[in-house]
Amino acid sequence: AVLEDAIESFQEARLPIDKLHAQARIAEALESPRQRILRQFNLLPNGIESLVFMRAELLRADDQERLAPLEHDLLRLLTLWFDAGFLELQRLSWSSPAALLEKLMRYEAVHEIKSWDDLRNRLDSDRRCYAFFHGRMPDEPLIFVEVALVNHLASNVQMLLDESQPTTDPELATTAIFYSISNAQPGLRGVSMGEFLIKRVVAQLAQDFPALQTFATLSPVPGFSKWLKESLDEDSYVAQLPLQVRFMMEGDRQESRFDRLQTIVQDQECARSSGLVTKDDLLALQQWLLSECAHYLLQEKSRQDPLDSVARFHFGNGASLQQINWMADTSPKGMRESLGLMVNYLYQLDAIDEQYHAFAKEGRLAHSSEVRKLLTVREALRIKN
Amino acid sequence: AVLEDAIESFQEARLPIDKLHAQARIAEALESPRQRILRQFNLLPNGIESLVFMRAELLRADDQERLAPLEHDLLRLLTLWFDAGFLELQRLSWSSPAALLEKLMRYEAVHEIKSWDDLRNRLDSDRRCYAFFHGRMPDEPLIFVEVALVNHLASNVQMLLDESQPTTDPELATTAIFYSISNAQPGLRGVSMGEFLIKRVVAQLAQDFPALQTFATLSPVPGFSKWLKESLDEDSYVAQLPLQVRFMMEGDRQESRFDRLQTIVQDQECARSSGLVTKDDLLALQQWLLSECAHYLLQEKSRQDPLDSVARFHFGNGASLQQINWMADTSPKGMRESLGLMVNYLYQLDAIDEQYHAFAKEGRLAHSSEVRKLLTVREALRIKN
Ligand SMILES: [Mg+2]
Repeated sequence: AVLEDAIESFQEARLPIDKLHAQARIAEALESPRQRILRQFNLLPNGIESLVFMRAELLRADDQERLAPLEHDLLRLLTLWFDAGFLELQRLSWSSPAALLEKLMRYEAVHEIKSWDDLRNRLDSDRRCYAFFHGRMPDEPLIFVEVALVNHLASNVQMLLDESQPTTDPELATTAIFYSISNAQPGLRGVSMGEFLIKRVVAQLAQDFPALQTFATLSPVPGFSKWLKESLDEDSYVAQLPLQVRFMMEGDRQESRFDRLQTIVQDQECARSSGLVTKDDLLALQQWLLSECAHYLLQEKSRQDPLDSVARFHFGNGASLQQINWMADTSPKGMRESLGLMVNYLYQLDAIDEQYHAFAKEGRLAHSSEVRKLLTVREALRIKN
Repeated sequence: AVLEDAIESFQEARLPIDKLHAQARIAEALESPRQRILRQFNLLPNGIESLVFMRAELLRADDQERLAPLEHDLLRLLTLWFDAGFLELQRLSWSSPAALLEKLMRYEAVHEIKSWDDLRNRLDSDRRCYAFFHGRMPDEPLIFVEVALVNHLASNVQMLLDESQPTTDPELATTAIFYSISNAQPGLRGVSMGEFLIKRVVAQLAQDFPALQTFATLSPVPGFSKWLKESLDEDSYVAQLPLQVRFMMEGDRQESRFDRLQTIVQDQECARSSGLVTKDDLLALQQWLLSECAHYLLQEKSRQDPLDSVARFHFGNGASLQQINWMADTSPKGMRESLGLMVNYLYQLDAIDEQYHAFAKEGRLAHSSEVRKLLTVREALRIKN
């Protein structure tokens, strides 16, 4: 009844000021008793942690529909309690408690940590790992990022993770590559922490290593295969394909175009030695895929935002798309998701703010001239009707 | 438009589950852009502090009406950010930074701290002072409480604050008297912290001093004079006054009954030596005032809650009214507010929860048999028609 009354006074309000007051009344009426009960948890020793875990369970539950209001209340509460201003940055290293490092291994979402040796390599002297913690949940990392200190814009993640590669002197490194960022708490889904983590770590590294000039990611393109597969099912798209590429994909009537494409890309050596494609075919294929990826990242939208979730995240932080890398993640996951492509987003300290505003206001996606060239190539390659 | 749509779907919803979903949509639509801007402050070094100060200014501003929506948004945010679970208990002592102690002097709201000597006495070895702090606002106490470690239920605050009184050995103290609790931040008005502070300090003291058996307050009765003055203006109330008391107050037609009463109470010696009242009159007056105060605290309501704001606070915490003290605060403020009366609320660890629930559910106000007797006395004294 309180809510109904507040709504009524909102609907009857004429003056803007009365509208505002009625809105405040509605907001008060909506403060559900649930909210008040949930807040009580904060008084218990592990109360906040149990709320985060509870929300994780709710999000996994079968009865989504019925539990959604509770889950929303939790999200609203956790969003404020885990506001970026309250998060504490901690460096994780080989000296950190094993119990904590074990959690890293479990939570790593981008490039699976295969063993303690793999982990140790990721915490080597030319590597950095940082996590956000919350004061009331000291044993649980909330989100963490893995960084490699190197001398070039890394273009291949397997090389980056190769334990046999020599360790570089971090003092001499010119480039910090953020190659993995993982949310550790499913219960905090929808609470944004990644942007602040990256920016805090960039600031920290810039202070610790004055020689660093470039801060960039080596990022997946998780939606590329899916988009390409759907496009290849559309006649209008296929009609515009460069002929050389189209022929390669249509060699076998049993396989779909995309599957055929994947077979070729996955083992290019084999495709060539078996006479399926020529060396020139492969070059054409590479150029075409790189230009399609540039188009996918910069021009394919979901409403007004980039269709690709990772692109959406980095552009939304004010980063720019610097480079698209061929055969950059040759793991089964990389091949499946993006035909092995990965990209670098650049976090350029003096450009981030401006790029962020251009993105927020006009939806502009910052990118390098190299990537822009790929768009030009695409235009040139497509067959116009 | 988003809000209007959400409201419409709420009004059209039939099933409880649809109502709930529509409510969630309304709540989302109400998340004002203001809220989002306010949250940004948390990323700045003194951001939270400036929000607290901003709200203090808003509450003082002339243009309340127009600023209320912003002030409400701030309150909702600060309520969650200053949730009791996030507050840190700190003991303040003579070893604390002078800059901090100076703030105590400035913020003390109950019994003015007159000098550094006065303050030093309040921080003596038989005294304790605790404050809540927030991690993001480390230099600002939020609320603090002053405690005296003594051997009896203190019944007079001037004695408690008398610097010339000998210091007692805190290890031998049986009773902890909470004689002052002050909100230090006007910008956090409406954010409840007092209850948790008292309970945390009780727990802390019980641990530090095993000999302590009684935890009680020495509290003002801020609304007593106001209520009595208004009552004395009503004929029906006056008609029920004990005659001896009524005659005393009606000696002079120039003065109102209440003013006359105040004159007598303020200087009882003088009233007696000038032949205005007899010793027996004064005893009758004392008994009558004590019983009226018991009635005021236990039976006068504002809606269903105790009319007196301090009583409302302590009963709401699960405390009980233990004792009403005559001439307990003879300062001008004490005389003005409550004709010198003060009371003790008892925080009995094993009774608090039960008393809290009886209060919350049935509005029951816990009190001692001594106070109950005062109610019986009152019934006996009143003149029935
Ligand atoms: Mg003393």
